[in-house]
Amino acid sequence: MGNTRVLCAVSVEDRVPNFLRGKGTGWVTAEYAMLPRATHTRTPRESVAGRIGGRTHEIQRLIGRSLRSVTDMAALGERTLTVDCDVLQADGGTRTASITGAFVALALACEKIRATDLARTVPNEGLLAAKLREAGLAQRRAIRQGVAAVSAGVVGGSVLLDLAYAEDSRADVDFNVVMTEDGRFIEVQGTAEGAPFDRATLDHILDAAGAGIRDLFAVQREALRLAGVAVPT
Amino acid sequence: MGNTRVLCAVSVEDRVPNFLRGKGTGWVTAEYAMLPRATHTRTPRESVAGRIGGRTHEIQRLIGRSLRSVTDMAALGERTLTVDCDVLQADGGTRTASITGAFVALALACEKIRATDLARTVPNEGLLAAKLREAGLAQRRAIRQGVAAVSAGVVGGSVLLDLAYAEDSRADVDFNVVMTEDGRFIEVQGTAEGAPFDRATLDHILDAAGAGIRDLFAVQREALRLAGVAVPT
Amino acid sequence: MGNTRVLCAVSVEDRVPNFLRGKGTGWVTAEYAMLPRATHTRTPRESVAGRIGGRTHEIQRLIGRSLRSVTDMAALGERTLTVDCDVLQADGGTRTASITGAFVALALACEKIRATDLARTVPNEGLLAAKLREAGLAQRRAIRQGVAAVSAGVVGGSVLLDLAYAEDSRADVDFNVVMTEDGRFIEVQGTAEGAPFDRATLDHILDAAGAGIRDLFAVQREALRLAGVAVPT
Amino acid sequence: MGNTRVLCAVSVEDRVPNFLRGKGTGWVTAEYAMLPRATHTRTPRESVAGRIGGRTHEIQRLIGRSLRSVTDMAALGERTLTVDCDVLQADGGTRTASITGAFVALALACEKIRATDLARTVPNEGLLAAKLREAGLAQRRAIRQGVAAVSAGVVGGSVLLDLAYAEDSRADVDFNVVMTEDGRFIEVQGTAEGAPFDRATLDHILDAAGAGIRDLFAVQREALRLAGVAVPT
Amino acid sequence: MGNTRVLCAVSVEDRVPNFLRGKGTGWVTAEYAMLPRATHTRTPRESVAGRIGGRTHEIQRLIGRSLRSVTDMAALGERTLTVDCDVLQADGGTRTASITGAFVALALACEKIRATDLARTVPNEGLLAAKLREAGLAQRRAIRQGVAAVSAGVVGGSVLLDLAYAEDSRADVDFNVVMTEDGRFIEVQGTAEGAPFDRATLDHILDAAGAGIRDLFAVQREALRLAGVAVPT
Amino acid sequence: MGNTRVLCAVSVEDRVPNFLRGKGTGWVTAEYAMLPRATHTRTPRESVAGRIGGRTHEIQRLIGRSLRSVTDMAALGERTLTVDCDVLQADGGTRTASITGAFVALALACEKIRATDLARTVPNEGLLAAKLREAGLAQRRAIRQGVAAVSAGVVGGSVLLDLAYAEDSRADVDFNVVMTEDGRFIEVQGTAEGAPFDRATLDHILDAAGAGIRDLFAVQREALRLAGVAVPT
Repeated sequence: MGNTRVLCAVSVEDRVPNFLRGKGTGWVTAEYAMLPRATHTRTPRESVAGRIGGRTHEIQRLIGRSLRSVTDMAALGERTLTVDCDVLQADGGTRTASITGAFVALALACEKIRATDLARTVPNEGLLAAKLREAGLAQRRAIRQGVAAVSAGVVGGSVLLDLAYAEDSRADVDFNVVMTEDGRFIEVQGTAEGAPFDRATLDHILDAAGAGIRDLFAVQREALRLAGVAVPT
Repeated sequence: MGNTRVLCAVSVEDRVPNFLRGKGTGWVTAEYAMLPRATHTRTPRESVAGRIGGRTHEIQRLIGRSLRSVTDMAALGERTLTVDCDVLQADGGTRTASITGAFVALALACEKIRATDLARTVPNEGLLAAKLREAGLAQRRAIRQGVAAVSAGVVGGSVLLDLAYAEDSRADVDFNVVMTEDGRFIEVQGTAEGAPFDRATLDHILDAAGAGIRDLFAVQREALRLAGVAVPT
Repeated sequence: MGNTRVLCAVSVEDRVPNFLRGKGTGWVTAEYAMLPRATHTRTPRESVAGRIGGRTHEIQRLIGRSLRSVTDMAALGERTLTVDCDVLQADGGTRTASITGAFVALALACEKIRATDLARTVPNEGLLAAKLREAGLAQRRAIRQGVAAVSAGVVGGSVLLDLAYAEDSRADVDFNVVMTEDGRFIEVQGTAEGAPFDRATLDHILDAAGAGIRDLFAVQREALRLAGVAVPT
Repeated sequence: MGNTRVLCAVSVEDRVPNFLRGKGTGWVTAEYAMLPRATHTRTPRESVAGRIGGRTHEIQRLIGRSLRSVTDMAALGERTLTVDCDVLQADGGTRTASITGAFVALALACEKIRATDLARTVPNEGLLAAKLREAGLAQRRAIRQGVAAVSAGVVGGSVLLDLAYAEDSRADVDFNVVMTEDGRFIEVQGTAEGAPFDRATLDHILDAAGAGIRDLFAVQREALRLAGVAVPT
Repeated sequence: MGNTRVLCAVSVEDRVPNFLRGKGTGWVTAEYAMLPRATHTRTPRESVAGRIGGRTHEIQRLIGRSLRSVTDMAALGERTLTVDCDVLQADGGTRTASITGAFVALALACEKIRATDLARTVPNEGLLAAKLREAGLAQRRAIRQGVAAVSAGVVGGSVLLDLAYAEDSRADVDFNVVMTEDGRFIEVQGTAEGAPFDRATLDHILDAAGAGIRDLFAVQREALRLAGVAVPT
Repeated sequence: MGNTRVLCAVSVEDRVPNFLRGKGTGWVTAEYAMLPRATHTRTPRESVAGRIGGRTHEIQRLIGRSLRSVTDMAALGERTLTVDCDVLQADGGTRTASITGAFVALALACEKIRATDLARTVPNEGLLAAKLREAGLAQRRAIRQGVAAVSAGVVGGSVLLDLAYAEDSRADVDFNVVMTEDGRFIEVQGTAEGAPFDRATLDHILDAAGAGIRDLFAVQREALRLAGVAVPT
């Protein structure tokens, strides 16, 4: 996304958090971090500080919620998928870039899991795969539809999408919008950085964000197509 | 706010965070916590866990941003106002109740500071008060206008405001809206808990939230009037 | 207790710490904290510091020991009762006020547990309740007698009870005395803040504390009576 | 003290905690720890747990208070004396052994400081030494009198002093008494481990502790005499 | 280095650690971390654990020592250069790859600093640059010679260099060797993973490592040449 | 070792770390710490800092590896032996002194375990002892041969062994060598503190270290002989 580069990787474990144990459904969670020199001046590591900051917590909760909203947890079986979003280079919009990229990684991982579950010959298939097959879940795609996100803001009176750092620091209004491929909202977060904003500005921003996200869905589909994976339309 | 009860208290210190030192302006920050038995089943203390959770970070950042948006930092001088919002009893909407209550506490504190700055006789007034008087800032009100917040949600197809815990846990869509008294937005946060929501639902929710917040401004003004303080209209 | 106000709440869980597992007896523990603005100048939160201070540890151990000394652990069954003592306003003597108040909360909780255990009809009673009934423990009261505490000190040569903050900071000798309703001691803690104190002073203080605590027992009994609970004499 | 062995060492720094800065007086503080294998079964290190436990906090606060009660802070000048009490072998009574031993180490350190301050030739003496000499404080002894401590308990109906671990774990009542050489109290801490104790028991324990501590003063004086240091009688 | 990929970045600050303040010399330090999915199975983040592990500490101390050994601290002036080594993909030898790569990043940074110091026109040059120019240090190169490192091991009786993860886990002996371009040693670390090793094996390994490191110096020089920077021969 | 004094103690537990569970073999691990006043100026406790420093981690990993290299893990059965090395007084070479001393403590503990396993009468022997006897492991000695360590350095052009603190701080090259009694290496760590060192210096140091360590084996054997324990030659 411009000069913002995020490495997204999915890890799969055959266990779920305590509150889901025994319910037969899976979980998707996310972690987010920045390399210290992703930013223009060096940001100290959170491992050195000994605690994860509020901004990081907020972002990884948002990524997790966004991904879960388009995932069929029953089709995963009792598995946890952890999506690591590590920012190598930051130039604004790292949280929305993380969501958009994480979806591609998640879709690839889900298809790989499904292919493996289906391919196992009955005699030596895993316990989890057997249970999913029996329930008819191994055939089901875990991804229901696409999800993508974009940042938007008002800079000098104009609505801009995917703000670079220099634009973002001058913005009066700062929005993050997460949408599904059917044009509905998963998350809308808008903050007045300077003066409060009115309803007309909000409407204008949501229109622009919707158009921008439609472009991102095309990019995601192309990336998945190149990797040999299709998401349902 | 219904069965949700939050104790809001302001503390004033004659110093500012490092990034503001020497700039002549003040700062407003907030801390948020719940008593362990504010909730129906006991929630472990964050001091015992040894770290503040992501949800707490997210909430206190929201309260701080909301209060700063209506405060004239130059009129405060180099002072930090810390607003503690401690939830004694929680029945949904603790973050929006915190914002609405914190504003009343902040307005009371700002008026008390202004009265003290103005009342000092020149010979023995403090250094900060002297500088503010000279700059004509001691006369200025630090609070520009009111700010209040309400939670909103869609439960069983209907839009509800100020959801109680039982309603909140069944909601499909969960919004927090922070507005200023002139009818503009400070913050809009909307999350799909179940299915994604469409633009019409978003519009409906914002209409309802705007009406609800107008009622809260009347309650805030009444509380301030009883304490002998007026906010500018 | 004067201007000191402590909110005491009991939480019940059907499990015990590791060292008691399988022994058929319960446990009573306490946590203590102050709201940041309970004190005249703001005290930073222990959750922000990331660790619980020595003073807090010392106080919550004292509260726990005091409550356990009058509780029949076998009558509780394998349950843990956690008593949260949260200081809303502090004007001296917060640890002794916590003990005196926590006893009332504990006695109410124990009676509520006993009533529930006795009321269950045999077919669907819980496993723990069944075991207690069988052992004849459900009929037994868990509270053996009352416990209360008072602070005492020597200020300007006079022995005072329940010192306010302004008195406490001028005291030469600082005592905390915890007694049972039958006039015996659970805990005696006396510290010379300035000059050491002699045996006569110690005797004088213990006499005064004993008289003061007798008054507190009357207040506790009245509070329990109003809530419809009696403690054995 | 029997099989309990504590290594006590004093470190001197030419600075004081913030709350004393510029007041011209010194500070005495203590730290307490146990080697992991001081106890019969290994105790995990607090450095591994990442936090100092409540018991450790309680003990090092007690040691510090006891030592400060017999020290003339003005005679120290703006210096901090840190007394490390490290338990090499634990067989009951480690906190009282720490106080009794720490006093000897403190008295040795104070005399060494005084000798150094007096011996400096005027031309190149340190700033702090010069100020103390001018104020006539360098001549003054920082130690006013001795302080020592003993544990006491009631085991099987008898009052015992300096309980070994095996005795301590069977005790019904557990006391720690800290006294000055003139026969007065610095600290009295008594806890009912089993049944509450009455006033007669308390009196009996204090009598026995007073006698025991008198013996410890003789041991301390002998240790100081062997090291060539006298404390005022 | 094979499938091991490390991102090395240098950050420059105009301040030094406390122990060097006012001595006119600089400092070079390093931080090392792995992305959670650099490894074949996911490694939890150290920021989540809240502490940096022993292995990380050991590695970043080694990188820092290696880089400092070839740097002229006086030529840096009072600046700290922090080298971040972040492992994107790990397949054995991440610490030696970090040293070899970090040297290139350090040499580039030092030349950039020197060029900037020399280019400043006298009127508005910084205080530090002016002091360095006056002392003739701005002309001096901070890098004295190259430094590179290689891992070596004995696998199935043969000495191998730059072991991949699969080889490393079968190695009987595990060495890390850091050398300067003039063929001398900065660090030799050899560990018997299985049976102890004899002097002949050690000699064999050091010969092989020396030859391998000579190849790495050629690669480093080529990388620096492409970036337009030369290191003295 | 000169003025360096380290207290070494072994603790035995009938459990192993997770990665060894069910494999029938034991584990040897080490912890290392210094008393705050072991050093000439006081070193703050790691428990107060709340984290174990990099140097400590590095040292305790080295001690553990050295001890494991001469221990037959199968002969221990599923037991963990933790060796605590606590430095009471530090004058250089604390890590090598810890290894040399820890071996003596470990050999004593292993012989004590073996004697206990062999002495048990069959009817009431423990489960672990029974399994070991059956497998013929109780007869086997867990210690295969001796291990000892020495520090070495180049000071003013001469190679020195077991450097005192004053020598160590002037050394150009700093080595730690761990060897087994059959003259082979467990660990070789050499660091250039000032200028890099050449191969001839390395050879010279290893020769000297080998000779020094042979002397240490004699001292260890004498210590074990006095305690009535023999190690195989």
